[in-house]
Amino acid sequence: MTPQAAYDELIKQIKEISLLSSCGSVLGWEERTYMPRQGAGLRSDQLGLLAGMCHEKFTSPRIGELLAAAEASDLTKDPTSVAAVNIRETRHQYNRATKLPKELVEELTKTTSLAQGEWGIARKNSDFKHFLPWLEKVLGLTRKVADAYGWKGEPYNALLDGYEPGATVDEIERVFEPLRVDLVELLARIQKAPKKPDVSLIEREYNVELQRVFGEMVAAAIGFDFTAGRLDITTHPFCTGIGPGDTRITTRYNPRRFNDALFGIMHEAGHGLYEMGIDKKTHFGTPMGEAVSLGIHESQSRMWENQVGRSKEFWVYFLPQAQRIFRESLAGVSVDAFYGAINYVTPSYIRVEADECTYNLHILLRFELERAMVKGDLKPTDIPGEWNSRFKKYFGIDVDKDANGCLQDVHWSAGLIGYFPTYTLGNLFSAQFFGKAKADIPGLTQQFERGDFSKLLAWLRTNIHEHGQRYRARDLGQKVTGQPLSHKPLIDYLKGKYAEIYGI
Amino acid sequence: MTPQAAYDELIKQIKEISLLSSCGSVLGWEERTYMPRQGAGLRSDQLGLLAGMCHEKFTSPRIGELLAAAEASDLTKDPTSVAAVNIRETRHQYNRATKLPKELVEELTKTTSLAQGEWGIARKNSDFKHFLPWLEKVLGLTRKVADAYGWKGEPYNALLDGYEPGATVDEIERVFEPLRVDLVELLARIQKAPKKPDVSLIEREYNVELQRVFGEMVAAAIGFDFTAGRLDITTHPFCTGIGPGDTRITTRYNPRRFNDALFGIMHEAGHGLYEMGIDKKTHFGTPMGEAVSLGIHESQSRMWENQVGRSKEFWVYFLPQAQRIFRESLAGVSVDAFYGAINYVTPSYIRVEADECTYNLHILLRFELERAMVKGDLKPTDIPGEWNSRFKKYFGIDVDKDANGCLQDVHWSAGLIGYFPTYTLGNLFSAQFFGKAKADIPGLTQQFERGDFSKLLAWLRTNIHEHGQRYRARDLGQKVTGQPLSHKPLIDYLKGKYAEIYGI
Repeated sequence: MTPQAAYDELIKQIKEISLLSSCGSVLGWEERTYMPRQGAGLRSDQLGLLAGMCHEKFTSPRIGELLAAAEASDLTKDPTSVAAVNIRETRHQYNRATKLPKELVEELTKTTSLAQGEWGIARKNSDFKHFLPWLEKVLGLTRKVADAYGWKGEPYNALLDGYEPGATVDEIERVFEPLRVDLVELLARIQKAPKKPDVSLIEREYNVELQRVFGEMVAAAIGFDFTAGRLDITTHPFCTGIGPGDTRITTRYNPRRFNDALFGIMHEAGHGLYEMGIDKKTHFGTPMGEAVSLGIHESQSRMWENQVGRSKEFWVYFLPQAQRIFRESLAGVSVDAFYGAINYVTPSYIRVEADECTYNLHILLRFELERAMVKGDLKPTDIPGEWNSRFKKYFGIDVDKDANGCLQDVHWSAGLIGYFPTYTLGNLFSAQFFGKAKADIPGLTQQFERGDFSKLLAWLRTNIHEHGQRYRARDLGQKVTGQPLSHKPLIDYLKGKYAEIYGI
Repeated sequence: MTPQAAYDELIKQIKEISLLSSCGSVLGWEERTYMPRQGAGLRSDQLGLLAGMCHEKFTSPRIGELLAAAEASDLTKDPTSVAAVNIRETRHQYNRATKLPKELVEELTKTTSLAQGEWGIARKNSDFKHFLPWLEKVLGLTRKVADAYGWKGEPYNALLDGYEPGATVDEIERVFEPLRVDLVELLARIQKAPKKPDVSLIEREYNVELQRVFGEMVAAAIGFDFTAGRLDITTHPFCTGIGPGDTRITTRYNPRRFNDALFGIMHEAGHGLYEMGIDKKTHFGTPMGEAVSLGIHESQSRMWENQVGRSKEFWVYFLPQAQRIFRESLAGVSVDAFYGAINYVTPSYIRVEADECTYNLHILLRFELERAMVKGDLKPTDIPGEWNSRFKKYFGIDVDKDANGCLQDVHWSAGLIGYFPTYTLGNLFSAQFFGKAKADIPGLTQQFERGDFSKLLAWLRTNIHEHGQRYRARDLGQKVTGQPLSHKPLIDYLKGKYAEIYGI
């Protein structure tokens, strides 16, 4: 078999596996949107069957043979060629998928399923002791997972690699550490600021149906194509790129908080624009048809949510439109007042409700703790104490109960250790990318004032979306911005924004 | 391998195939309800993959071996035992699935896909000549299909067997023939009747959103469980039993015709109640967890639509409720007037818009023509002439154009030859079953006047739903009603109804 023939068969096989997997994406979306309650058992069986079939097909020795035959050839000579990329990233996935013993996967699946239930109870009763044995079990299994994958430096790297391929904890720490120092300092200054925006503007009555209308209009305006996608309602908002021509986003509406749905929609639409921008017509089912990493994905969602949606220029265009829809609640509100309200900063317990400034402090705290746990430097039993003391240091306030502290997130119970840092990586990349986009596109933010987002979207498509997994996140960032990842663009962006709003 | 071990493995395998197939059911439902337009290509690939995988798994020689090992044993001794039924019907499906050469299936799939497109054009332009070559192609392939399956008597039997297992054209004809004679005579009498209901009542303004509210209330009242099902909107209404706890129905709303959505909902809910009544918790994925046939399925939908929904007793209860919802359009309308309007009879061109009396004449005409075509007694080129002359004989009116005649249905272009008679079988069974239910349940129709349908539903569950495929349709009818299938119950029911409404 020639390398080319091996490669062609490999692509055929992984495309078919992806197609099968995409059936599961539809079922997963439907489970959270329209499925009748009593259908849950069947749906779980269906999803389990599809996942099992995909895993079995993908881990078959044949895939390994085809990979080996294709690797040892000219196909991988140019490392950014389509073939080289598809081979490199399929190898990465194949190694990970084949390294875990079946028993470990099954034990992890079972344990995390139970642990999520127990976590729910623990959070409800703010009872960390109830969760502790489950955290210990999940942590123990997660360490085994890391060992099975193999790691350099520390085991956390093997976990991180599942969400952010190729990233290492050391390089992340070099950026996260100064970010934390600067954010703590910025937050302290904001809290002592003489000027405060009036946040009550966005806590007025916002009719849910009108929020939907306005949100859809905004999503369409920034480029989300409703002939190739949908917006629905779920408890936990998400985006799923099912395949070519089919990208779904969801949100939830709070009739007394304008920010939740609108910026949630812009966030998910940002993810959606990335999925829509990948050349899936050609590359669906192969790494060239997939997003780079969770961090890069998050950079897209956060850019549209924050750099675009929370900019003053955006509201120069959209506030008058919002005022025609929410006549009473927004009557007489100025762009400056509205801009202040949507950018209000305050330390709060809950990550998912955090503002743009404090959000990353929530993440950094979690990253530090989970990394120490995996390393063995921190025992699960010491989590509440360590959480609360760091929270006090970073946010300046005391955690009142574990439900508002270390019990708030589902991630650890679900075995998603190594996932948190991708949120902050996303924020870092978004600021760095946006800085470069502003430099490349003359008058970019003035275009927002006219409701024109086409040049930014085109820039993102050309520079990021269309590459699929051609570059790893680190290299993509370097290639696009000419700079390594740094905390500076994000901190400078935040400082600039809050200088105006808070007069600091 | 013991017969029991073979049977157990067989069940395990067919349950897994059904689970995989049920993923396709969700995708098929979603394709018609919520899928974004541009997702159509991907969805077609997904459905093709799943169908192909199911077919490949089901037709594997291993299934044949397991069947053979289980058949030659005590397991099949009691022909109505769970094991015997599962073996018998799996054998039936296996034989059909393995008898068609792959090339024939592929040619049929391709040809019918193209033929449906061409049929759409032909119908739009009322141009039978445009459709003729495609009808000839589909007919030719369908004959090959019948030959591949093998047949006794005439090839049509092999096609009918796909929709109504075990039924034969001769036994059907013995019931259809007198039904036609009686219906033609009944229709002629109705048309000369001195009394006519005022059909305009149901052609007033009926707000679509209120129709949905009312329709959902009615569906819930007759027993459709919305925690285990949904009602959505599609162009062509349908019911799909996805699996345990998950049955979906759809409808379409016409703001100027009350009948369409409401009786459509009751019809699909009738299908849904059957699906919900099958013991899928235990038998899902095996013949014991499946409906008997299309005819029996249709008997359930038609009974709830007609014997229940178009009864006077039903509206004694529901008209006052409808009047509170559709205040203007139903103000001052009496139960008698409303009952007459929803049961209005008139010859019309289009089958799917036909009333309860003329509907079966539409079916009988199609059955006669397609049977003759398959037999070779009627050439496709002669279809319009033959259609129109029979239409004149049965309905008393001339067909104005082929779009309103032989070009109106998608079935022939889709290769669904042998499907039409199941509609009339459903109507025949519904009348026969309902007659027995009335005899078995004292005061049944008076219960409708109080909005109580629980005893009828319980009777259907015990006598029909819970048996799955334990009995073939013919035997089920005999067992439940003590009588062979006959045209008498349906004709007597219709005569009784129209005697009152039309004074004949």
